[in-house]
Amino acid sequence: MIAVDWGSSSLRAYLLGDDGRVLATRRDPRGVLGCDGRYAEVLVELVGDWTGEIFLSGMIGSRNGWIELPYLPAPADAAAFATAMHRHEIAQWPGRGLWFVPGLSCGSSEDAVPDVMRGEETQLIGLAALLGAGRHLACLPGTHSKWAWLDDGRLGEFATVMTGELYAVLRQHSLLGRVMRDDGGFDEAAFVQGVDYSGTPGGLAHQLFGARTLGLFGKLSETAAPAWLSGLLLGHEIRHRQGLPAQVHLVGNAALAARYGAALAQLGIQGLAHGEDLAAAGLHRLARLRHLAAG
Amino acid sequence: MIAVDWGSSSLRAYLLGDDGRVLATRRDPRGVLGCDGRYAEVLVELVGDWTGEIFLSGMIGSRNGWIELPYLPAPADAAAFATAMHRHEIAQWPGRGLWFVPGLSCGSSEDAVPDVMRGEETQLIGLAALLGAGRHLACLPGTHSKWAWLDDGRLGEFATVMTGELYAVLRQHSLLGRVMRDDGGFDEAAFVQGVDYSGTPGGLAHQLFGARTLGLFGKLSETAAPAWLSGLLLGHEIRHRQGLPAQVHLVGNAALAARYGAALAQLGIQGLAHGEDLAAAGLHRLARLRHLAAG
Repeated sequence: MIAVDWGSSSLRAYLLGDDGRVLATRRDPRGVLGCDGRYAEVLVELVGDWTGEIFLSGMIGSRNGWIELPYLPAPADAAAFATAMHRHEIAQWPGRGLWFVPGLSCGSSEDAVPDVMRGEETQLIGLAALLGAGRHLACLPGTHSKWAWLDDGRLGEFATVMTGELYAVLRQHSLLGRVMRDDGGFDEAAFVQGVDYSGTPGGLAHQLFGARTLGLFGKLSETAAPAWLSGLLLGHEIRHRQGLPAQVHLVGNAALAARYGAALAQLGIQGLAHGEDLAAAGLHRLARLRHLAAG
Repeated sequence: MIAVDWGSSSLRAYLLGDDGRVLATRRDPRGVLGCDGRYAEVLVELVGDWTGEIFLSGMIGSRNGWIELPYLPAPADAAAFATAMHRHEIAQWPGRGLWFVPGLSCGSSEDAVPDVMRGEETQLIGLAALLGAGRHLACLPGTHSKWAWLDDGRLGEFATVMTGELYAVLRQHSLLGRVMRDDGGFDEAAFVQGVDYSGTPGGLAHQLFGARTLGLFGKLSETAAPAWLSGLLLGHEIRHRQGLPAQVHLVGNAALAARYGAALAQLGIQGLAHGEDLAAAGLHRLARLRHLAAG
């Protein structure tokens, strides 16, 4: 089978063996926003020489993607996702199924503010199989981080935190960006100070200004300020999570997971890093549940 | 005498009578960042036909301005500012004093994160004269809002909050801006919802994402979303202030002060609006204290 994690800005395809083992991986920069709606052509071009049914997760199943699938409301287990997958065919591959995985929503009742994910649910399905029974908290860092509870294998309540995007827009477009400079390094001590400062009163919109004033008083260099800002934002992200357990499972690229792990450790929490290929594991699990893969 | 409030992006000059009454006002778009260092020329052009000593406050006295004055550490009263004014002369006006007012800093001790203001201290000196003895909290909304305590006429601890700039960069440069649209109106109900939502758990970087998800679920229109975001950010700004009293003095343009007043009222606090010309009153007071003006 073929597993495809197709996000807004990139796509990753896996050829999987019957046991779910990754036999080959291919990446492509043509994310949902970068392929002009020519999804079938991109897919045939990228994995046309591979055989098997195809399983797709991520923004490819959103309003701005190929086929819009409604969100599955939390809590939901892997079986619910497997049942809710949508089968599609393309002219190029008659008789061969393209299976779209729905996203996950929570808090969508009348008076609540809802939250959504697309793509991360598949990584979480992979993680849930790994962790088994019990209550676990997973953090998937990124432009929009996701913090999700797993309860005995079910995907439960979760929260999106815009830390990554906030960092980027502040660096590129705010006054703070003008007092910062990259020298290729990462100032660990400034990062620790930022995480620390996130625990003081005043609120984020106040504390951000510290990047400016610490610089004015010679207490923070313009090359250390990016790490300070990163620490401040990560500190806020972590401190505002409810009912933090002693361990958090980190899923994502190694560098970002390491940075989250450092902030978590500073706040007395152990971060356990998992690989990025959990999406492939999750899609394999969904295929198996529909008897479309062995294992 | 002439009072000049010279900020980053604009300048306002007042001709004052002996009693401090505003006889004439002139505005100019050539702020500190927009006059290519030709400060003297701009000043002569703008108020060359007025007579009297000139008093200047705002970013004109900063590192990026005409003459850099060190910050006066809080607490500081009007007399301290009057004493710390710096006299300057220009070739065009021999014998005529140009008096620069220093900014104010707080929290500049070894282990603290400092805060600074330039220009607002002059408005606060005007406000302090108006309010007299007692402890008062003033809020000066803007790109970077200032919240400052006045203690028996002294300018005390204060905090900068980057609400205005955050709103602008999120509107112009983030995902949230792409799900918002201006129709010239302001959705009061959405603003109230935003203020309300700022009191829930999860932190600002999480709550911001609500502008996206409420829209996805048809609970917030793209024309109502700007007011919702404004309410969320103002709600955060207010809720994070320490020891909020029953009344807050609002100093700034009427529209912005009204919006802050509405958010304060929703949180059970009365906002008392003051005019923008407090800078002129403050500069007149400093002139009198140096015996450079009557009254």
